[in-house]
Amino acid sequence: MEETKTAGKPIRCRAAIARKAGEPLSLEEVIVAPPESGEVRLRIICSSLCYSDITFWKLKDPPAYFPRILGHECFGVVESVGENVSEVAVGDTVIPVFMPDCGECGDCTSSKSNLCSNFPFQVVPWMHRDQKSRFTDINGETLHHFLFISSFSEYTVVDTVHIVKVDPTIPPERGCLLSCGVSTGVGAALKTANVEAGSTVAVFGLGAIGLAVSEGSRLCGAKRIIGVDVNEDKYEIAKGFGVTDFVNSRTCGDKSVSQVILEMTNGGADYCFECVGMASLVQEAFACCRKGWGKTVVLGVDKPGSNLTLSSGELLQTGKTLTGCLFGGLKPKSDVPMLVKRYLDKELELDKFVTHEVNFGDINKAFDLLTEGKSLRCIIWMDRNI
Amino acid sequence: MEETKTAGKPIRCRAAIARKAGEPLSLEEVIVAPPESGEVRLRIICSSLCYSDITFWKLKDPPAYFPRILGHECFGVVESVGENVSEVAVGDTVIPVFMPDCGECGDCTSSKSNLCSNFPFQVVPWMHRDQKSRFTDINGETLHHFLFISSFSEYTVVDTVHIVKVDPTIPPERGCLLSCGVSTGVGAALKTANVEAGSTVAVFGLGAIGLAVSEGSRLCGAKRIIGVDVNEDKYEIAKGFGVTDFVNSRTCGDKSVSQVILEMTNGGADYCFECVGMASLVQEAFACCRKGWGKTVVLGVDKPGSNLTLSSGELLQTGKTLTGCLFGGLKPKSDVPMLVKRYLDKELELDKFVTHEVNFGDINKAFDLLTEGKSLRCIIWMDRNI
Repeated sequence: MEETKTAGKPIRCRAAIARKAGEPLSLEEVIVAPPESGEVRLRIICSSLCYSDITFWKLKDPPAYFPRILGHECFGVVESVGENVSEVAVGDTVIPVFMPDCGECGDCTSSKSNLCSNFPFQVVPWMHRDQKSRFTDINGETLHHFLFISSFSEYTVVDTVHIVKVDPTIPPERGCLLSCGVSTGVGAALKTANVEAGSTVAVFGLGAIGLAVSEGSRLCGAKRIIGVDVNEDKYEIAKGFGVTDFVNSRTCGDKSVSQVILEMTNGGADYCFECVGMASLVQEAFACCRKGWGKTVVLGVDKPGSNLTLSSGELLQTGKTLTGCLFGGLKPKSDVPMLVKRYLDKELELDKFVTHEVNFGDINKAFDLLTEGKSLRCIIWMDRNI
Repeated sequence: MEETKTAGKPIRCRAAIARKAGEPLSLEEVIVAPPESGEVRLRIICSSLCYSDITFWKLKDPPAYFPRILGHECFGVVESVGENVSEVAVGDTVIPVFMPDCGECGDCTSSKSNLCSNFPFQVVPWMHRDQKSRFTDINGETLHHFLFISSFSEYTVVDTVHIVKVDPTIPPERGCLLSCGVSTGVGAALKTANVEAGSTVAVFGLGAIGLAVSEGSRLCGAKRIIGVDVNEDKYEIAKGFGVTDFVNSRTCGDKSVSQVILEMTNGGADYCFECVGMASLVQEAFACCRKGWGKTVVLGVDKPGSNLTLSSGELLQTGKTLTGCLFGGLKPKSDVPMLVKRYLDKELELDKFVTHEVNFGDINKAFDLLTEGKSLRCIIWMDRNI
């Protein structure tokens, strides 16, 4: 195993620090400690900006913590490994994933679950094993981690349960998309719903996740994909992702969105996906999925503590199913390489998700673009002038 | 086709009429019209009393109607057939089922649904095709039907979409059980949940439906079946149906039932079945089904208009599934004969569901026994002195 000169030593590098909620990230030098046992240190090639980064950047109270290094959709190369790491070696290309996959617990060894029990997913601002940070700023202040990844730094330390070794031939600016959002949407269609060829799908919310659900449904051979959004402009973009019909939920008149979809589909969509994170939309989705076999999948993250109300009678009498998933129900270590393969085999289309690219120094521009709804995915390059 | 002497003519016979909510049924002579097109007239051999009969007998307002001939779990022989009936002939033994199965609509031709679209299930007090009754009393007053069956009459008229021709070697007092309750519970385990061998099941409510879920789970090879009830005495009975553990929901102390089951199972049951019809119990069931793959199936009929509240976050983060079913998700025409076969093959145990038998003249005793919680299933024989 080739060891790099920096192995075992702290690395001083550039990172974008979120110092206060909603204020522009501050590009500073930081110190990245060497990886501990079971961890690796990565050189980040690029990140793509996901809406969860924006959410936690804006949030004032816990689970928001400042100062923090955000970023979690990314692509990297192993710079060095800690003790007890055999899964990857220096130089391997990896996709970090916020969902842990220890490979050993009852969930990770079951084909039915992607919710690791040994390292349960939680929104905490440190590393799993010692609840500490590997980052300090040049004044010695501790910087918080984000989703176990913190990719807005030239180097970062990640637990091996959060990394997936992938085929190095995938371009970094496509591979990083599989780190979170696109996998979540595509996986929800492929794995959680297991969309049947020829079926009708309704997608509530046409952001990157919803468009990834459309892409996944298209891959599965869905015949009709109905996109629902409040923004009419989304339809043109969505067509490129397989969306065949559009419902503007603000202009349904006297009818509810579910009534409109029930009529359009003569009885309901076979699969409904809620990608916004609004309990009322989950209810609408459930209402317009097909009696007998309709499946509603919840992907959208609602506010903590929010509740969902369903009619007991409808649940009983319609035989519909309601479920939810994190990371599209995908098991990172086995399913991300499968998606990489499907991309390399030209089945899964990723190019269309990337609307913008910026240099790391312009990271705040990426934040503006996504906040203003102008970008789907903006690639943030660590070391490439574009 | 042998035609009986009564074919095409009204039949005068004995029936038990529910004239007022909650008052003893009145044994009277009634006139049963000949079957119309698509219908058959049956001679009822026996019925078993299901709790839905009690519910509608007690109910004062619509969907309760009086006078009415209740009864829907039964076994009969075809006395005569109307026009356009080719599926059965005079003398065939049939199990009537409240769930329609036209065999032609998109639902009936799909293996995924048991909710006929041509004859949607609804709680109406008449025949499907002309919204009329086939019963009058001796004073000419119209008597309402119940669940398209009305088996508390020596003869009744049933639409062919509600009858299943079965192997005549099944004893009537076992066959009738497959007409509603036992099929509902067994089907929920076999078909809706598709319980995996070796899994853990929690059954909320140990009435006949809950015990049938246990029997179905036992058939599927469940390793552990946890019964939940407020009545401690149910445990002894339930053991005979495969229940291995008991939780008295009234004596959980500071803990909720779901907490107790989560601890007992070290993380939750693989399948939870709600067989009572209480929104709060559905929530408890959902809370204690296993993260990652747990499935909660709602079978219990709650009051009309009642709602269910679920945490959006729990739905998203746990990957659990919630669903409901009528008639256990079974397709009457194909699945009831399958259950008959499994009984005849000595796989499905039915004998233990029958705790009492009465002659038709003592039908009110059957109502008392079930109301007082003393019987599981009481067979009501039309023409046999017991």
